[in-house]
Amino acid sequence: MNPDRRTFLATAATLGAAAAASAATGGSAHTPPKLVHHVFFWLKNPDSKEDLAKLLAGIRGLAAIETVRGIHVGVPASTEKRPVVDNSFSASEILYFDDVAGQDAYQVHPLHQKFVSECSHLWSKVIVYDAMAV
Amino acid sequence: MNPDRRTFLATAATLGAAAAASAATGGSAHTPPKLVHHVFFWLKNPDSKEDLAKLLAGIRGLAAIETVRGIHVGVPASTEKRPVVDNSFSASEILYFDDVAGQDAYQVHPLHQKFVSECSHLWSKVIVYDAMAV
Repeated sequence: MNPDRRTFLATAATLGAAAAASAATGGSAHTPPKLVHHVFFWLKNPDSKEDLAKLLAGIRGLAAIETVRGIHVGVPASTEKRPVVDNSFSASEILYFDDVAGQDAYQVHPLHQKFVSECSHLWSKVIVYDAMAV
Repeated sequence: MNPDRRTFLATAATLGAAAAASAATGGSAHTPPKLVHHVFFWLKNPDSKEDLAKLLAGIRGLAAIETVRGIHVGVPASTEKRPVVDNSFSASEILYFDDVAGQDAYQVHPLHQKFVSECSHLWSKVIVYDAMAV
């Protein structure tokens, strides 16, 4: 076998192994960090696209806080309206942390406090759910 | 360069590229799938560890449904009790989907219907929030 052919095969084998490892540890089977901090916001002016955009921009800025391990910023999905589904919120924010200490550090972080002081006039109600993986 | 040395270097370069790609697309900065389906359950018997274990086991089984891209199964985290925090729920279930079609397929899937028929006697209340990433 010539060296180039040998290198190609070795590289292909390595890529195959990397793909297999990725499939086993993540890929389509997504494993979130342990602590989910899920916040729902109801805007004072729920029909204001401007207010929603301001709030969403503010939420996105929270991702810069060191202990935040991931973020999901959303609005109500267009799933079927069933009695158990609450789709009345304006915005959804999920921040992921490794542990309670990470969430505690986030609460008192200057960037979080800046977000509250700059955006809290936009919302009329907030509900927070903190769930720890078991 | 002998072929073995050449192969080693090619392999090392490939592994380095794979590690760099992984760091750029995931790693500590966790990016969840687009559609978050977050369900909170309140048990009829909130002090029953047995009922909680049955419910959690039932929830875990939902991960086998083809369109489910990830799962987070939790209980209230021991974060600070603030007026905006609702920690009264018994169990939290997040299922991740790529899109609304994936969630729709899940709703009518036999495994989901089996879960509802086998576990719904355990809970007194359920709230569902569906949030689409924006």
